[in-house]
Amino acid sequence: MEKINLQDKLTRVRDYWDPHIVGELNGQYVKLVKFKGPFTWHHHENEDELFFVVRGRFRMDYQDDESNEKAVWIETGEMVIVPRMAEHRPFAEEECHVLLFEPATTLNTGSVENEFTRRNLSRI
Amino acid sequence: MEKINLQDKLTRVRDYWDPHIVGELNGQYVKLVKFKGPFTWHHHENEDELFFVVRGRFRMDYQDDESNEKAVWIETGEMVIVPRMAEHRPFAEEECHVLLFEPATTLNTGSVENEFTRRNLSRI
Repeated sequence: MEKINLQDKLTRVRDYWDPHIVGELNGQYVKLVKFKGPFTWHHHENEDELFFVVRGRFRMDYQDDESNEKAVWIETGEMVIVPRMAEHRPFAEEECHVLLFEPATTLNTGSVENEFTRRNLSRI
Repeated sequence: MEKINLQDKLTRVRDYWDPHIVGELNGQYVKLVKFKGPFTWHHHENEDELFFVVRGRFRMDYQDDESNEKAVWIETGEMVIVPRMAEHRPFAEEECHVLLFEPATTLNTGSVENEFTRRNLSRI
């Protein structure tokens, strides 16, 4: 029953787009990640993803049901839930600290494998 | 893909200990709730629960594996995960705003039924 302090944990996250696990419950992970610049377009076949902004802001680019490209800015204290199969790409102009909540099976780049892909995440 | 602003949503939560649903993903709910005073001792048979403090602070009273009573204060920006079967009771000296993340099946008072029990939660 140890408490988790997000600011303390974030000091241990150095690289951008490198998620770290800070908690686990009901087969889901709580992760912390630092965004900067554009991520890669991708989707998840079977996982919905929650993004909560702890500090800063980022833009979530996504495709709607008709494959039109849209975008929504997520500010500090705001969250967005990206449903499975939705094509999306986070983008941050400035460093942005984000808490993720998603199934333990979730790969950060979903169905894409590229230089952004991270496996065997650290627990901090 | 609508964003969820926690402060906006919290203005729609009036009563203490009355959780409201603000999001759903992977069979889990994101809820907002306002704490004040002591809740009821209870546990959940099959659900782990995450408590994240958006504003204020609260004390999580709990029983450890040897049924000894313990307590941990959770401050703004901190979270705690209560594992299934762990007897626990949140307590807030002052009003405290909390985000919950837990399976959709979770009843707020777990295996206890009393004046704190809330079913058919509002979506805001």
